[in-house]
Amino acid sequence: MRIDTLALVGVGLIGGSVGLAARKRGVAGRILGVDSRPEVLQRALTRGVVDQSRPNVGSAAAEADAIVFCTPVDVIAGQVIEATSVCRPGALLTDAGSTKASIVRDVEGRLPQGAGFVGGHPLAGSEKQGPEHANAELFEGRVVVLTPTSRTDDKALSQATALWEALGARVRLMDPEEHDRAMAMTSHLPHVTAAALAGVLPPEWSGLTAGGFRDATRVASGGPELWAAILQANADGVLDAMDQLDKRMAEFRRSLASGDRDALIALLQQGKLLRDGLTC
Amino acid sequence: MRIDTLALVGVGLIGGSVGLAARKRGVAGRILGVDSRPEVLQRALTRGVVDQSRPNVGSAAAEADAIVFCTPVDVIAGQVIEATSVCRPGALLTDAGSTKASIVRDVEGRLPQGAGFVGGHPLAGSEKQGPEHANAELFEGRVVVLTPTSRTDDKALSQATALWEALGARVRLMDPEEHDRAMAMTSHLPHVTAAALAGVLPPEWSGLTAGGFRDATRVASGGPELWAAILQANADGVLDAMDQLDKRMAEFRRSLASGDRDALIALLQQGKLLRDGLTC
Repeated sequence: MRIDTLALVGVGLIGGSVGLAARKRGVAGRILGVDSRPEVLQRALTRGVVDQSRPNVGSAAAEADAIVFCTPVDVIAGQVIEATSVCRPGALLTDAGSTKASIVRDVEGRLPQGAGFVGGHPLAGSEKQGPEHANAELFEGRVVVLTPTSRTDDKALSQATALWEALGARVRLMDPEEHDRAMAMTSHLPHVTAAALAGVLPPEWSGLTAGGFRDATRVASGGPELWAAILQANADGVLDAMDQLDKRMAEFRRSLASGDRDALIALLQQGKLLRDGLTC
Repeated sequence: MRIDTLALVGVGLIGGSVGLAARKRGVAGRILGVDSRPEVLQRALTRGVVDQSRPNVGSAAAEADAIVFCTPVDVIAGQVIEATSVCRPGALLTDAGSTKASIVRDVEGRLPQGAGFVGGHPLAGSEKQGPEHANAELFEGRVVVLTPTSRTDDKALSQATALWEALGARVRLMDPEEHDRAMAMTSHLPHVTAAALAGVLPPEWSGLTAGGFRDATRVASGGPELWAAILQANADGVLDAMDQLDKRMAEFRRSLASGDRDALIALLQQGKLLRDGLTC
């Protein structure tokens, strides 16, 4: 996999890590960066995440062979459409947004004939933000979900697959709606729970937290605006996932209120069984 | 601080770590171990966590200058009382149980005149169990809560304080009931939430989890029997904490269902503010 000119729209943690990984692995001839925040773009240049900056999506898209959109989920679709009007024939357009259904729907509803878009989502990240936390190994061995539809160009899908594999990831294909239902449970619900747990802790007890609380709430340090956009883009899925958690919490409540130790142990055992099956 | 003979009742992760820390820091002349599980006691001997084993609480207590009970919270009080009938005059009895109110109440209701007991809880641990995971640095810089009452012997409190400080910890004094209310929020509720999150994840989506889910659910790998005993010993506190989380989750739900982004950001911001204030 070799891309002459790779453009990154959004050069924060994810875009910055795509840049560093592409550079380290020799995937791109040159890397262009676009970001609406001038100071973030400057930090990305300083860190060597990108070779050159461009002032807007259009000017980067006009030069790029592949464009990866690593911006908040509520702006990605509009930027992709903006890029399609100027990008080169055969250019790959893909994204790294944490939700897929609304982005893919919005893009496909307005996509010009022949434009090569496929939705994507690397299951990797950090509660830390910005190109200064970018990491060339962020995608190493991690799953990247691509969400082709019946309208997806075959060449775009194979290019996006090759790109992420070249960055060290394992590609898994899913339907956009299924992706969002799964992420509601694996990512969005844990984020809400972490924020809620941290939000209800009386500050005078913060000195009484240990590793358990800190791990359980780590993701609550993520950017509120970024996460609000993600949760809203998948609101139905998140609400469904919250219902499922609610039911399970009610089972815990009943076993505790009634002193039913066997039921309580069974509930804890189910959680342990699933958790023990995950690596690290 | 120097203890001629230190007895550990329960030589799993916590008892084993007390033993390793005491040995490394020269706190104890010799360390005796008791455990109802012969294979665990053997592993503790093999690892050098204890110098010698004793067959039961009484035989260890008869020789010990200080006894630390590191057993499940539902057996600690009975073992402390058993020890008081044979222990030396002036011996320190303390424990490392994750709940304090019921243990302290049960022990104090049956404590002979002059026996030196003080409740304790090191805010350190791991989802891993057993002396093979014990760690001489487990208490380094961590908070140990001691829960003296009006009936606590002054000398026992100063001995227990000196012991934990000698093991590297910082001692904080709290009322047993206040300790349990705080732990409901800082430890027991996050455990229930982790177990519930892990328990409701469809196994076919476990390959779609990343660091966020794994951190949020790490503690769910803890021992179900141990945790059932902890949650039951603090059932009222845990149910209250669940109510508070429930209310906060309902606020998230309302903001999501109504599409109120400002409210959603405010909720996320509150969680981030608290979480960012915690180290690591």
